[in-house]
Amino acid sequence: MIPAISGSPLYKIACPESIAFFGASNNFSAMGSSILNAILTDGYEGRIFPVHPKEKKVLNLEAYSRVRDLPEVPDLAYIVLPTKIVAETLRACGEKGIRRAVIVTAGFNEVGGEGKVRQEEIKAIAREYDIRFTGPNCIGVVNSHIKLNATFLPSQGRPGFIGMASQSGSFITQMFDYLGTRFGQGFSTGFSLGNEANIDIADCIRYLGACPDTRAIALYIESIRRGRAFIEAAREVSAIKPIVAYYVGGSETGKKACLSHTGSLAGPDRLYDGVFKQSGIIRAQSVEEMFDFCYALGSCPLPEGNRAVIQTHSGGPGAAAADACGRSGIELPALSPATLKKLGSYVPHTGSVNNPVDLTYTKNPLDFFHAIPKILLEDEGADSMLVYFLASAAMIHRALSGMGVPKAEIDAQVNKIVDEQCGSVAALMTSCNKPLLGFSFLTRENPFIAGLQDKGVPVLPSPERAARALGALVEYRRLKEKLARSVRTK
Amino acid sequence: MIPAISGSPLYKIACPESIAFFGASNNFSAMGSSILNAILTDGYEGRIFPVHPKEKKVLNLEAYSRVRDLPEVPDLAYIVLPTKIVAETLRACGEKGIRRAVIVTAGFNEVGGEGKVRQEEIKAIAREYDIRFTGPNCIGVVNSHIKLNATFLPSQGRPGFIGMASQSGSFITQMFDYLGTRFGQGFSTGFSLGNEANIDIADCIRYLGACPDTRAIALYIESIRRGRAFIEAAREVSAIKPIVAYYVGGSETGKKACLSHTGSLAGPDRLYDGVFKQSGIIRAQSVEEMFDFCYALGSCPLPEGNRAVIQTHSGGPGAAAADACGRSGIELPALSPATLKKLGSYVPHTGSVNNPVDLTYTKNPLDFFHAIPKILLEDEGADSMLVYFLASAAMIHRALSGMGVPKAEIDAQVNKIVDEQCGSVAALMTSCNKPLLGFSFLTRENPFIAGLQDKGVPVLPSPERAARALGALVEYRRLKEKLARSVRTK
Repeated sequence: MIPAISGSPLYKIACPESIAFFGASNNFSAMGSSILNAILTDGYEGRIFPVHPKEKKVLNLEAYSRVRDLPEVPDLAYIVLPTKIVAETLRACGEKGIRRAVIVTAGFNEVGGEGKVRQEEIKAIAREYDIRFTGPNCIGVVNSHIKLNATFLPSQGRPGFIGMASQSGSFITQMFDYLGTRFGQGFSTGFSLGNEANIDIADCIRYLGACPDTRAIALYIESIRRGRAFIEAAREVSAIKPIVAYYVGGSETGKKACLSHTGSLAGPDRLYDGVFKQSGIIRAQSVEEMFDFCYALGSCPLPEGNRAVIQTHSGGPGAAAADACGRSGIELPALSPATLKKLGSYVPHTGSVNNPVDLTYTKNPLDFFHAIPKILLEDEGADSMLVYFLASAAMIHRALSGMGVPKAEIDAQVNKIVDEQCGSVAALMTSCNKPLLGFSFLTRENPFIAGLQDKGVPVLPSPERAARALGALVEYRRLKEKLARSVRTK
Repeated sequence: MIPAISGSPLYKIACPESIAFFGASNNFSAMGSSILNAILTDGYEGRIFPVHPKEKKVLNLEAYSRVRDLPEVPDLAYIVLPTKIVAETLRACGEKGIRRAVIVTAGFNEVGGEGKVRQEEIKAIAREYDIRFTGPNCIGVVNSHIKLNATFLPSQGRPGFIGMASQSGSFITQMFDYLGTRFGQGFSTGFSLGNEANIDIADCIRYLGACPDTRAIALYIESIRRGRAFIEAAREVSAIKPIVAYYVGGSETGKKACLSHTGSLAGPDRLYDGVFKQSGIIRAQSVEEMFDFCYALGSCPLPEGNRAVIQTHSGGPGAAAADACGRSGIELPALSPATLKKLGSYVPHTGSVNNPVDLTYTKNPLDFFHAIPKILLEDEGADSMLVYFLASAAMIHRALSGMGVPKAEIDAQVNKIVDEQCGSVAALMTSCNKPLLGFSFLTRENPFIAGLQDKGVPVLPSPERAARALGALVEYRRLKEKLARSVRTK
């Protein structure tokens, strides 16, 4: 059983009601100012107390010259100061009674030499005052559900269901745009870990496991510091919620890069493979794949098995998906006689009722969104479904125009049709309780793609990526069952 | 030596001066009408003669009731008619003296049975009249350099340097949007092959090899029908121009899908691997990768060897690129003492001058576009360079505003800065004659990404994809040398 998030050392870091902010000024280009600016822009509703030795106001907020002058004890200290004064500031926070901190400042373990001494110093201060902190050398924290974005780039304010713990802050703050433009998603909660001098990735796994807004957990890993704690936390959490990890220390060049990035010592690929397997973690081979997998895992019910049916109206994308399915261990069974009978007149003579089902063309293009996928997804031999989408709102526009619909009404009618059709696909996934993944080379600029995604149907950007994401669903189903068995036999 | 395109049977198919069009009408939703509409929309400047039994005008063009009534012998017949009347139409074209055709109509070999008989029939007619044709069951042809888009979806009119021959029409017509929104690219020339009853992929390889607008060739393959002709054509062409193939018949599920798509019999993965190796072809593992590789190969000079330097200001994307380099056989050597000296003050104390070079931050962000990459690319140990881009035009906007630049002038100044910086990166690649690949999670909506791509710097959408594309450059360099040696020893 995973305890509630309120029991986690990360609770007041991810959900603070008040923040003491160190390092923001009225100089906009300073890193601290950028972060405070991002916090204000995204609309965080808690109390913020900038601490600045000289300024009376910082970004229009009342500023305090010393932490001890603050009118209350804030939940969290956010430290973006020059390296040399971090330790004394942390001590002052401890004196004030602050018990949580995010230390963004760099120049510690990752630079070696004196940096290592400095890191030991802040660790000792934290022990002395019972402070738990993330960083140093991190980018911060984001919690879209309380509009807290303390990561210096604008978050676009999108909530989402992907929880992330990352040993690179970039994969939080620089992915807002990525997740938004590709999937219409944001992070539920994201932690940038930096050097993990105090709080580490195992703590984050437990927090995200308990977080009610998080449906899938992404981990960017350069090195695991506490192996046993990591495996224990991951096994516990992955029994109830999927975890996807992307590890980059596996090649010789990757290992060296990790060492100079966060001062971490990466291990051989196979060792990490073993750790992930033991922990019930799904391994991704790239940043894109990590988010593809989390997106699909957080969107779909799990499949009963590895048999899928593919619906397409273009042979090439269908064949590419079929080939990728084979490489991901997904089988494509023949359709049942009952299904073939029901399909009947929907498939023109140029089409194929093999699997992939290639419609080439349908008299009523809207059948592609409901009647046909319903028949296919209800086939007893299908545990899941992949659908290729190439719907064009422009074509509906043209058709309505051709039917004589007045110009003024066309846009509204197109929107209504898009909305209904996308809703119809989404409803299928619920009624059949089987995963349905879309794929398309189109982006969210196409209203059908945005519509499907926003209604909860994951649409991936290529046949191969959709097939691999479906493979991750099948894998997670197996991992989960295995973990359940191992708990029962204990 | 590759002969000129005018010697190819595909010449008048890709570059017709006049087209007889069969199957378009004033019913907009018909496939033929869509294709003719696409041809007109894209601005093809040749002569078009619609042939229609009843209509006097088709899409505002003068129509002819029979092909023999046409006022001239067109270069090309474009046939999008019901299956049953294709043969008689082809014969009428032959009688008229037309010697090239594109047969879009489906319902031949790919449906088996009677379809096979029909395909033999049209082959015999073609032999009788000396007609060469692509298809049947194809989508058509696109040649952006003469504004010919006969593929039924709008091409967005983008010219480009990727030539393609595809056994699925979707990978031509459905990729206009993809190549445009991702890379600002289009096809130089694209052939949809369909059932390859007459002209096949080997013919296309030779044509694209000689095509002056084509810098890299993409092949989507479900099956190779004439093995020896394919290998001969590919070996000849890949000695002077890179060829990238994506083969989807390799898995059991892929093989079955190919059979029902174009009636082709795919072979085992390893067999095709061998064919590609023999032919000097680079194999891609997905549609995305096929285009990534072609895009990079068509944009960059080839590297002397496999040593790269990575420039980043974010540790995570740098480490991910480094790890992916290792997996693609790219080495990341230490910087030379001379380079380290020149870098000097550009790297802050939080940064790293290992490889990846992680700047974390630079006093003048514009150094990131010229001074720093110049020093790195000139390092004798570097054969190539990967650069992570996260430039924000909004930040320049804010900085100029902070400096007191009048509002009315800011946009123009931002554009000028973006333009100069992007030009500066592009110039480096030319002056150093080494490949420079960018990567970014941002899209072309960001003016820096669009600016770099439009000036000829390939920017790929993730670190792993950039590293793999660089791997393709290194691989092609080796293949080319090997082919040159084998020619010399003959």
